[in-house]
Amino acid sequence: MSSNETHQQMLAKYAEVIVKIGLNLRAGQPLSIRTPTHTSALVREIARVAYQKGASLVDVLWSDDGVSRARAEFAPRDSHDEYPVWQVDGMLKIIEKGGAMLTIVAVDPDLLNGLDTGFVGKLQQAQLKNFDPVRTIVMRNAINWCVVAAYGSAWARKVFPDFKPAQAEEKLWQAIFESTRVTEPDPIAAWDRHIQNLRKRSDYLQAKKYSALSYKSPGTDFSLGLPPGHKWVGGNSLAENGIVFTANMPTEEIFTLPDRHRAEGTVAATFPLSYGGNLIEDFSLTFENGCIVKVNAGKNQSILQQLVDTDEGSTRLGEVSLVPASSPIGKRGYLFYNTLFDENASCHIAIGRAYRFTLIGGEELTDEEFMSAGGNISLNHVDFMIGSGKMDIDGIKDDGTREPVMRSGEWAFDV
Amino acid sequence: MSSNETHQQMLAKYAEVIVKIGLNLRAGQPLSIRTPTHTSALVREIARVAYQKGASLVDVLWSDDGVSRARAEFAPRDSHDEYPVWQVDGMLKIIEKGGAMLTIVAVDPDLLNGLDTGFVGKLQQAQLKNFDPVRTIVMRNAINWCVVAAYGSAWARKVFPDFKPAQAEEKLWQAIFESTRVTEPDPIAAWDRHIQNLRKRSDYLQAKKYSALSYKSPGTDFSLGLPPGHKWVGGNSLAENGIVFTANMPTEEIFTLPDRHRAEGTVAATFPLSYGGNLIEDFSLTFENGCIVKVNAGKNQSILQQLVDTDEGSTRLGEVSLVPASSPIGKRGYLFYNTLFDENASCHIAIGRAYRFTLIGGEELTDEEFMSAGGNISLNHVDFMIGSGKMDIDGIKDDGTREPVMRSGEWAFDV
Repeated sequence: MSSNETHQQMLAKYAEVIVKIGLNLRAGQPLSIRTPTHTSALVREIARVAYQKGASLVDVLWSDDGVSRARAEFAPRDSHDEYPVWQVDGMLKIIEKGGAMLTIVAVDPDLLNGLDTGFVGKLQQAQLKNFDPVRTIVMRNAINWCVVAAYGSAWARKVFPDFKPAQAEEKLWQAIFESTRVTEPDPIAAWDRHIQNLRKRSDYLQAKKYSALSYKSPGTDFSLGLPPGHKWVGGNSLAENGIVFTANMPTEEIFTLPDRHRAEGTVAATFPLSYGGNLIEDFSLTFENGCIVKVNAGKNQSILQQLVDTDEGSTRLGEVSLVPASSPIGKRGYLFYNTLFDENASCHIAIGRAYRFTLIGGEELTDEEFMSAGGNISLNHVDFMIGSGKMDIDGIKDDGTREPVMRSGEWAFDV
Repeated sequence: MSSNETHQQMLAKYAEVIVKIGLNLRAGQPLSIRTPTHTSALVREIARVAYQKGASLVDVLWSDDGVSRARAEFAPRDSHDEYPVWQVDGMLKIIEKGGAMLTIVAVDPDLLNGLDTGFVGKLQQAQLKNFDPVRTIVMRNAINWCVVAAYGSAWARKVFPDFKPAQAEEKLWQAIFESTRVTEPDPIAAWDRHIQNLRKRSDYLQAKKYSALSYKSPGTDFSLGLPPGHKWVGGNSLAENGIVFTANMPTEEIFTLPDRHRAEGTVAATFPLSYGGNLIEDFSLTFENGCIVKVNAGKNQSILQQLVDTDEGSTRLGEVSLVPASSPIGKRGYLFYNTLFDENASCHIAIGRAYRFTLIGGEELTDEEFMSAGGNISLNHVDFMIGSGKMDIDGIKDDGTREPVMRSGEWAFDV
């Protein structure tokens, strides 16, 4: 942030980047925004930019950390299935009208810490089940959509525990602005260059057509199949509605489809995982024939087990993603306790649903066809981090030969 | 506020009063809350109390002043009919499930000041039209519902322009807490006493069965028919769902049904009226045969005219309400620029829809029957203040004899 720019000006630039690069919103599109109440200063800027770009309606579906916690803490224990389905209906109507969707994450990673995990788990299940129609549409890139972050006081306290609240706020906003290139002299041009660089990596891997990846690092000895027709994606995507958008800001990853039937060995998480308001820490997963057969966690193992027990698809993987340990976010050297950031600091894999667009022609397939091609279906899609500066990854070709993809957490090939 | 009570403790007491006296929420009821994002500290307390009372779901429909203003200022001029109908659907579903409704007002009285009044008027019309199904249910007291206030920075600045923001915030919260008896040693008991006092006034007027009221004060020479079967209401009400609730906090008024066909003369407003984000000031209305035939305003006359032009029912009256000028809110001696407060400082009347429960048996009638009995139907219900320390009101009996009801703004009868 240059010293002569106020925070308000930075929010305005951030809003421009979100609407123009992230969503690439078109005139006449309605926009649905899901966000916590404490992000209102940013949301107002986004609404302004969206309306100036010709949005027909900006419909904000606000949540509130305190109200969510009050429910988890005090609501009758038999009320977990009460769900405001009209919120999902609203998002589906915006999608029907040709709209776009923005999600702003700013949640307290420890929001539901210490509460009745049984009830919290049931609330989470109701959320997963009711939200599935929207998730399904978004995860096949039917529309232009984007996930970004905003400051939250509890989140900042977690990331910067040694700083006073005002300093922690400044540091978290600074990290968000820098990671999303809002501090660049021309953020839009900086994003164009960045997307081109990610595209070169994904093109290289695409040409390789590896049949599997093999991971080695302390605690991890793991291999993961890549099905025929898997597609490497990075930077931006073309939605079914014809709009090219950037689904995550920040984004430093190249990712593709793992084969739901082929994962073997044990993989250790290198970051804590914030899931449903609780942090799962020091955990590992063991796979046989693509299926999780054992979970181990130093903290909140029961929540990790609930996640895996959600449905059959939650015992398998839906995404494999490569990020060098020296990525701009990894270089910061601290945890964000937030997937949007941490997944861009580290190689990761995701439990649960796969993206249709990571399989060539995947959008055209029935669920059954997608699954038999190696794709995974689940109510969940939960990324967790497995990369570090000690990780080596090999690409394995059809004939069994191996090529280095990453060494000591860094790209092992030039583009 | 006693010096040893923190603001957070006062919010908790306020939440108790709202949930227990205002809504009288019952175990198992879902609760729908409409409120601006900046009220989240209060809403969290309300959610806690509601869940502790056994609410099955607290669904908050947040609005945001800044997002609303962004739309009015920047949205395409042909987009006024885009409306998030799913928000209304959500409220109707909560009502269907036997729920209660809370509205928290905290809006900037000048929110849309200076913007394109034509577009703002069209947005307002779309809101009135789409919200009408909810308004109709609430206005016949089908469910327990309540309207309360919370601090907003722009609102506080308007009420206390000579104070610094932190002082204005403290003063506005203090006014809210005092007016809602939260500062009393036992707020619940204080409300019980207050409701009994209002009940005595309404019982007195009910026994009188006046056929009309006649108003005299500077700028006002006005008479208003009261139809046979009109019912005076004050303090609390019995909803169709069997729950006794208090619809407004604060409430200092005794009100009933005016005859839509009988209003004659000119009535001058004694307070500015905040309508749809703009203040209408220094205005008067002239009636013939119950119908507004002339409007005059020193400021925002076109917005007042838009209000009256909404529909046929907006040219007529739907409520007549008596409040002594020395009411606890009137005694404060300043304007709140907010109907919930200002209407409890002054006698007032309302343009538009009448409450069914202000006519004996009114809930059972068709719209046509209700209208021929003197009731009014409209998309609007807009209270405006006509009382002052200089107002005299007479009750007129069937035989034409007159009795004093108020003199110099104060009750002219004992109970």
